[in-house]
Amino acid sequence: MAFEFPVRIYWEDTDAGGIVFYANYLKFFERARTEWLRSLGIGQQALRERTGGIFVVSETAIKYHRPARLDDQLVVTARLQEAGRASITLVQQALSKTERTPPGNALVHCEGTIRIGWVDAATLRPARMPSHILEVLK
Amino acid sequence: MAFEFPVRIYWEDTDAGGIVFYANYLKFFERARTEWLRSLGIGQQALRERTGGIFVVSETAIKYHRPARLDDQLVVTARLQEAGRASITLVQQALSKTERTPPGNALVHCEGTIRIGWVDAATLRPARMPSHILEVLK
Amino acid sequence: MAFEFPVRIYWEDTDAGGIVFYANYLKFFERARTEWLRSLGIGQQALRERTGGIFVVSETAIKYHRPARLDDQLVVTARLQEAGRASITLVQQALSKTERTPPGNALVHCEGTIRIGWVDAATLRPARMPSHILEVLK
Amino acid sequence: MAFEFPVRIYWEDTDAGGIVFYANYLKFFERARTEWLRSLGIGQQALRERTGGIFVVSETAIKYHRPARLDDQLVVTARLQEAGRASITLVQQALSKTERTPPGNALVHCEGTIRIGWVDAATLRPARMPSHILEVLK
Repeated sequence: MAFEFPVRIYWEDTDAGGIVFYANYLKFFERARTEWLRSLGIGQQALRERTGGIFVVSETAIKYHRPARLDDQLVVTARLQEAGRASITLVQQALSKTERTPPGNALVHCEGTIRIGWVDAATLRPARMPSHILEVLK
Repeated sequence: MAFEFPVRIYWEDTDAGGIVFYANYLKFFERARTEWLRSLGIGQQALRERTGGIFVVSETAIKYHRPARLDDQLVVTARLQEAGRASITLVQQALSKTERTPPGNALVHCEGTIRIGWVDAATLRPARMPSHILEVLK
Repeated sequence: MAFEFPVRIYWEDTDAGGIVFYANYLKFFERARTEWLRSLGIGQQALRERTGGIFVVSETAIKYHRPARLDDQLVVTARLQEAGRASITLVQQALSKTERTPPGNALVHCEGTIRIGWVDAATLRPARMPSHILEVLK
Repeated sequence: MAFEFPVRIYWEDTDAGGIVFYANYLKFFERARTEWLRSLGIGQQALRERTGGIFVVSETAIKYHRPARLDDQLVVTARLQEAGRASITLVQQALSKTERTPPGNALVHCEGTIRIGWVDAATLRPARMPSHILEVLK
């Protein structure tokens, strides 16, 4: 099951094409990942203070299917695909909540996979994820 | 040969990790594509008024290698990999200009491929790229 | 009474100083204004399609009191101060929901007044606000 | 004499109204301030490492006169109005470089004053600006 997070489209998200600027879906994906972590009891600011580490994105592969527009309501999902000591991979989607479809057939605005590494916050070098974090994620 | 465009890192580009937020490289890549088009005589605002069409990103595959930081100087490249009537694909890199390396060995912050479709600006549906644009691109 | 809208601070909102980048409070204020309008039955996309007009900010006066940080929870307010045929003025605050205070004594991150004009969406020239909109706002 | 810095309008800067989103002028103003400081030999990243202090905006008063659009070229200015041990005040303008006018009569997109305080980077509390910085600014 995927974690779900609602996102509303505001003026800040759109561009002169009248649609959501392509980089901004990465913001929505990041918000959903943050709330997914929070739902597991992981606050990133607190985590950094305790462990000295932060998550940093190392790879993305994104497909843009349908433009979203001002005032649209989206549901952004996050589902863990893989978790190791050095990095985790998530599958994420930005689904339309505005355009109604049959159950289980939501229209997809944008989707992709995001790989995230664990790094030392001071040096930004790859590090081994604390095992209690890895356990919670799994 | 790749088109090159300089980018300086400002406060707006960074996040609380002290590094460039991952979505912002897509802004830098877009700036470089816009300037590459402009260097070919293609202004997107004028193009839209004349042809009724705009470019819209349909797919990205990005790898993040080294974080960039406040005040860093980058060179962002754009090189056409493929061009068809419905879409074009570019290879883009964000290279370090701050950290010196032997010639031809620039450090790579971020790189990837970007596929861009041509759509009708009013309907946002895929359309056939005007042939004079396609010729200029090739 | 002021309209209230919750805002969570994400990585995208912060900068390398570890705090919310000053321009981003204007995004939060815009989100709260949009939701305030929506609470009055005014959707801006629909409004534009029906009337051909849009709201455009013409003046801001903002004070920044306390930096907000990653994971902070804010309440952003919007209160109409003045409404005329050409423009409206709102008072807005970004209050801390994270740091607890006695009732009625919320800590203020940022506050100010925002003047917004009504313009023709095609020409962007000042226009007279439709009277039914003005009535709803008052 | 005001310091001048060129800014080009890209897709990322615009919104669905077809114009530059109001918060983004604050980004342009920040870029121009950063380059003004750099022109005086002050790099903010280096400054922070040496002194432990950073500049943080404490107040803005901005008027928006004329919308800027995709592909527009702006000149953004920065002129020191006042400098004290705790804060400095600048006057900044975003002028049109695209629309030609008689010399000395540039069209103004946006202008205002920005007050910036000097704070300890760790505590974010107001601090006394190092005297050598204050001297350079004056």
